[in-house]
Amino acid sequence: MARRDGRGAPVIYKERLKACRRELKKLRAGAFLLVNPPDFFYLTGFSGDESAAMVTARGVHLISDRRFEEQIKKECPWTATYMRRGSLNAEIATACKDLKVTKLAVQSDHLTLANQAELRKLAKGVRLVEAPPICARLRTLKSADEVRAMNKALRVAEDAFNAMRKTIRAGQTELEMAARLEYEMKRRGASGPAFPTICAEGANAALPHAHPGKRKAKSGSAMLFDWGARVGGYCSDLTRMLFLGKVPARFKEIYAIVLDAQMAAIAAIRPGRRMCDIDAVARRHIEKAGYGNEFSHGLGHGLGLDVHEAPSLSWRSQEKLRPGMLVTVEPGIYLPGVGGVRIEDDVLVMDRGCRILSRLSKRLADSVV
Amino acid sequence: MARRDGRGAPVIYKERLKACRRELKKLRAGAFLLVNPPDFFYLTGFSGDESAAMVTARGVHLISDRRFEEQIKKECPWTATYMRRGSLNAEIATACKDLKVTKLAVQSDHLTLANQAELRKLAKGVRLVEAPPICARLRTLKSADEVRAMNKALRVAEDAFNAMRKTIRAGQTELEMAARLEYEMKRRGASGPAFPTICAEGANAALPHAHPGKRKAKSGSAMLFDWGARVGGYCSDLTRMLFLGKVPARFKEIYAIVLDAQMAAIAAIRPGRRMCDIDAVARRHIEKAGYGNEFSHGLGHGLGLDVHEAPSLSWRSQEKLRPGMLVTVEPGIYLPGVGGVRIEDDVLVMDRGCRILSRLSKRLADSVV
Repeated sequence: MARRDGRGAPVIYKERLKACRRELKKLRAGAFLLVNPPDFFYLTGFSGDESAAMVTARGVHLISDRRFEEQIKKECPWTATYMRRGSLNAEIATACKDLKVTKLAVQSDHLTLANQAELRKLAKGVRLVEAPPICARLRTLKSADEVRAMNKALRVAEDAFNAMRKTIRAGQTELEMAARLEYEMKRRGASGPAFPTICAEGANAALPHAHPGKRKAKSGSAMLFDWGARVGGYCSDLTRMLFLGKVPARFKEIYAIVLDAQMAAIAAIRPGRRMCDIDAVARRHIEKAGYGNEFSHGLGHGLGLDVHEAPSLSWRSQEKLRPGMLVTVEPGIYLPGVGGVRIEDDVLVMDRGCRILSRLSKRLADSVV
Repeated sequence: MARRDGRGAPVIYKERLKACRRELKKLRAGAFLLVNPPDFFYLTGFSGDESAAMVTARGVHLISDRRFEEQIKKECPWTATYMRRGSLNAEIATACKDLKVTKLAVQSDHLTLANQAELRKLAKGVRLVEAPPICARLRTLKSADEVRAMNKALRVAEDAFNAMRKTIRAGQTELEMAARLEYEMKRRGASGPAFPTICAEGANAALPHAHPGKRKAKSGSAMLFDWGARVGGYCSDLTRMLFLGKVPARFKEIYAIVLDAQMAAIAAIRPGRRMCDIDAVARRHIEKAGYGNEFSHGLGHGLGLDVHEAPSLSWRSQEKLRPGMLVTVEPGIYLPGVGGVRIEDDVLVMDRGCRILSRLSKRLADSVV
């Protein structure tokens, strides 16, 4: 049994709910409405969707429907629930009336204009105020529990990759290899892939967001795998190259450039440095090698309950790194018509420096199957 | 090569773009901004995300970034593109300036309050007007091309299910069976499952939205599978029961009730009838059999580029069925601690009556593995 706070909530949610309630006070609102599923999961542990949560000074109320009744009993029996039979917005209006809420803080980064209009119509006498993105901000800094959850998601992704690579044969399609990788993740406890798995052979790897298709592995194939597992809500995100039989000469060169760029960027990660500075370390290295124009995306992104979340480890961001941030570091070089190389690890910012959470080898020799 | 209209767009997009442009005229807006990925896919064929599309009287402009450059060339070379280096909203503002747009129609059902505020700040002198949900409305009526695409998604889901059921053995976990089913879909060309596959054994099937876990198949197990494939953007969605070895007596009764309820509801589907009336056909049947309180969700939902889209085939909706609508029909009975039965097919509303697009047998005898 998890430890509970004074209001019955497990202590892991205590600080998070406190932060919401601080904001409520600041905004002088009676309740905070959360409509984004990863956010209400973060605050309550409820993993359903088509639902909402309302945090008040005294309690947490889930607004859901009977499909989720048993799940709520299991995941967060300490919350109060409204089981809607009508629309979600109508039930939110009912809850406001019940709880005597006259000012409701809403998530401006998730509430749509249409839902705002409908809430205004249904919840007469309730003023909506836009809250800053508190959850998104809190979520950038991972707790020890969250790092454990993400390590689990990494181990599942890594074990699955090792199992899948043993089954690769010439003649297999990208789809077959991607399917196998997702199968190996799911049977190890992933609720699913964190995003659709990329397996891109040859020239297909020149697309940073390639879709696996009917291209086949053949002797001398350079194949890019970008995959991750979702386990207990949390995502992992990795990229590795595999070469069938041998590494083509051209790839030896660019693999080394990308790997050096990645290692240099990771070595530069520490609290206080700006995102754009870390991006620049990798980018300058690739530019110097003559491939600046072929590294066409940012260096990385935050990772957690969403596979892309704050912070953005990119040239666009002046934000500073802080201990507890967890980011991907994934430089790449893409040569249209030829192929691409990307190498990606998940990195936790520590009090000093950082720790690479992913464990798969990046040695070129280990990339040959 | 697909046939093209006068502006170079393949003809399948012509009517859809026309409908957007009619709305533009009505609103006297210079451009229609689409931020919802299934919607801009529907209008252009571009399957990326973190992007947007702007439809003007003369053309279609995609706002994307270099990760998607090659993909855009392949999927919709007839569109004009803005490749952003800054934020998406900043590039939308640039496009408005370039295209001399002073009034921009936005998707009120998808644009968030935060994006609205940012666009207002960045696109000075541009007025935002909320457009009605044109795409959602158009998407409820499937074209012949779309029905073909959905049939493909169904064949992949069905073939995968038939392949998976042959591999079921006592001792396998729900996770293993769900993983196998997703593997069989993906290797047949699915970009992924349409939603996380449900495989729920025994009492776990009492949760309409069960998660597969470590429960094992054993002799006499009643197992509920709810799964679908996403193929070429389109989703299928099916539910079938499988029984290991034999059908427990209790399940013979409730299986027959659910199946009769489903068949009666499908037989009632025809243009002009209200959603709530079809829901009532199944519900009354289940109520009469004494399980009214155990059928805790609506009868079905629209299906297409999203796995849940309009219309809602539920007691809440007075909307009328129209030819071209494609809905799931999925009554269920859930007994806490015991298990559940749900049977689901995908049904196309025709000029007269309807057609069941899914082909898997529903005979109880065929459900024994």
